[in-house]
Amino acid sequence: MPLDAALADKILKAVDENFADQIEFTKALVRYPSRRGEENAVQDFVFREMKTRGWAMDRFHMDEEAIKRHPGGSPFSAEHSKAPIVVGIHRPKQETGRSLIMQGHIDIVPEGPTAMWTSPPYEPRIDGDWFYGRGSGDMKAGHASMFAVFDALKRIGLQPAATVTVQSVVEEESTGNGALQCHLQGYKGEAVIIPEPSGEKVTRTNVGVVWFQIEVAGFPVHVREAGNGQNAIEAAFGIIKKLRELEAFWNTRVGDNPLFKDTPHPINLNIGKIKGGDWASSVPAWCTFDCRIAIFPGEKPEQMMRAIEDAVAKATREDRFLANNPPRITWNGFTTEGYVLEPGSEAEAVLGRAHQTSTGTPLTAQVLPAYLDGRVYALFDKIPTLNYGPYCELAHGFDERFSIASLKRSTGTMALFVAEWCGLEAI
Amino acid sequence: MPLDAALADKILKAVDENFADQIEFTKALVRYPSRRGEENAVQDFVFREMKTRGWAMDRFHMDEEAIKRHPGGSPFSAEHSKAPIVVGIHRPKQETGRSLIMQGHIDIVPEGPTAMWTSPPYEPRIDGDWFYGRGSGDMKAGHASMFAVFDALKRIGLQPAATVTVQSVVEEESTGNGALQCHLQGYKGEAVIIPEPSGEKVTRTNVGVVWFQIEVAGFPVHVREAGNGQNAIEAAFGIIKKLRELEAFWNTRVGDNPLFKDTPHPINLNIGKIKGGDWASSVPAWCTFDCRIAIFPGEKPEQMMRAIEDAVAKATREDRFLANNPPRITWNGFTTEGYVLEPGSEAEAVLGRAHQTSTGTPLTAQVLPAYLDGRVYALFDKIPTLNYGPYCELAHGFDERFSIASLKRSTGTMALFVAEWCGLEAI
Repeated sequence: MPLDAALADKILKAVDENFADQIEFTKALVRYPSRRGEENAVQDFVFREMKTRGWAMDRFHMDEEAIKRHPGGSPFSAEHSKAPIVVGIHRPKQETGRSLIMQGHIDIVPEGPTAMWTSPPYEPRIDGDWFYGRGSGDMKAGHASMFAVFDALKRIGLQPAATVTVQSVVEEESTGNGALQCHLQGYKGEAVIIPEPSGEKVTRTNVGVVWFQIEVAGFPVHVREAGNGQNAIEAAFGIIKKLRELEAFWNTRVGDNPLFKDTPHPINLNIGKIKGGDWASSVPAWCTFDCRIAIFPGEKPEQMMRAIEDAVAKATREDRFLANNPPRITWNGFTTEGYVLEPGSEAEAVLGRAHQTSTGTPLTAQVLPAYLDGRVYALFDKIPTLNYGPYCELAHGFDERFSIASLKRSTGTMALFVAEWCGLEAI
Repeated sequence: MPLDAALADKILKAVDENFADQIEFTKALVRYPSRRGEENAVQDFVFREMKTRGWAMDRFHMDEEAIKRHPGGSPFSAEHSKAPIVVGIHRPKQETGRSLIMQGHIDIVPEGPTAMWTSPPYEPRIDGDWFYGRGSGDMKAGHASMFAVFDALKRIGLQPAATVTVQSVVEEESTGNGALQCHLQGYKGEAVIIPEPSGEKVTRTNVGVVWFQIEVAGFPVHVREAGNGQNAIEAAFGIIKKLRELEAFWNTRVGDNPLFKDTPHPINLNIGKIKGGDWASSVPAWCTFDCRIAIFPGEKPEQMMRAIEDAVAKATREDRFLANNPPRITWNGFTTEGYVLEPGSEAEAVLGRAHQTSTGTPLTAQVLPAYLDGRVYALFDKIPTLNYGPYCELAHGFDERFSIASLKRSTGTMALFVAEWCGLEAI
């Protein structure tokens, strides 16, 4: 039942009154450089903040064996985070509404050379409507907004009238194993909302992602006899060329995926990292590079993994050096599927009303050619999973930032969504 | 005057008798991982060994300002060694012979991944005629042989009858500034011998070398919008392609350099090292790679430096991304000329006789398309500079090794050369 207009106003006013505190909370999160494997301190902060709010607490580690057995599990590499997952459970006095999972990831990607930032990446900076910092948009603003929903409601003496499980996960940027562990732990909801920076749109579909590392090893010699050696760095380029051909081919398959028909280049291959050799005057005998490629929803990662193996094998056959030194492929991160939020769910309708009330505009949907943790709930629990959050620019780039006005609007939407989906009760 | 045959026999026998000690000395040198900047410990060992032999000692640092002013100086980068140069001077009782500089470099290139070695690179290993270890051939075998010449002569109660300056230098693998500093310090000789692993040949000519680093900086974005970002790693490949064209062009100029007419590919470009990006799912915004290229003797490094700048500028003009983010070139090592050992010198004739006596074969000359410290003396002192030493394989590679039999022969040659060039006197 749509929310009473007076109550909606009251809730939005409470979000507004709480907003300065929400920004402070966001700043506190951004100050933690919670790169992969370095999320322990911020997860302890999150734990304390949840406990303070009177939620039932759970904290657990990712179970490598269980994740390996699950079709949605991604491989563990040496870099895999060992930080815990932190879950806070709000239980109402009377369970009258519909239950909800709210989830945010606390891991961020590396900041790169600090010199390329206008200001230090872990010192939150506000300039007009922009809030700058590594991880500010992706997704600490959204993460903090989960707490802000409860804090705003509390200001007016209310709380959700259903169980809300608030999940702070890691490994969203590299494997998706953190979200999967919440599923394995048995947490359920009748809907899921994940406040990723979606620009106040709901995500209709996304892609699956495969990560891989290719190692080229070779035969090093003094540069004076370079003709007898083989340059592993340049051999790597040959493989990359073949991978680009593979990317081009998979993009031609957009016709089979009508949801992506307006997305110009949905299947992006990225060569994200390279390292090879150690001396200008020695022919480099090793080169390692890290890649990411997307797959359409409905396709299995294994299909792409075989295609990558074929492309590398082809490059290997065509190059004398590689033929003698076959490159090694390691699946060192994501091997995940994409998902579709099927239109017509009651959860999406509730979000649509909340969005209309908070922003004054109708809710639209987006197609996001990136990995999203929402896949766990959409694929394996088959419950409506709403990916919805503020507007952000330069995620993964220098001077990452989000719009403060957008965050206030999207937090308002979330609060109204919770009010209607879960119902409210007096504290 | 050619050496008396009986004396020559006596000297070669002494070299043979001393050889086990010489191998032990070589092992001691190889155990020091004296990579660039890490030569302090081994230089202290060398200092003690020189002092023990009663030589006058000198130890000094490279003078950055003086080296910068000198036309043979190479730029200092952050990686430049700060280790001292160690010089030991043998002065005879009566200065009756011709003076000599003997020089060896003690710096080595990185060993690369240890797993790619058959045995640990700093644990000397002998297998049949092969002596294995990083730096074994290039050039710790030759370095130790300078001491062996004196030790062998001492066994038969003799020493050189002229001043011999024995110089242990660093920075041979990266700038040539160590050898240049000896020149700046004022050490002179009527000939120079450097026992680099030349395969028992004398080096007729070598090349100059230019080192450079290219940094590509770009605009990073989340891979989902890869079309808006630009991949600095792949932009680097475009520049490398242009540099390979430049290399091909300079090799066509071999006609102007008749000494190189039988050297198939004298001007080698090497892409020795690369590093870029930090996350598989972020479009990499920076990539740095290190290169080395050769120049024919008689040409100035500045000529090649301008050609490199032009090639990079061309790649920059042809690429929208690079045009907006011009790459940066840093001259971070060698900017040195090649040299020619003019045929017909008395020093070479003496070496020829010594070689014939020690090995039973005539001395032949080689063309070496690599940097050699000999350039300092050939170019700036204009004295005959003999680059002559044992046979080595896989210098700069895994399982670097030298031939033990060859080392004994080349040490014999050196001892006979010293005997005839400097003359001998009773200790």
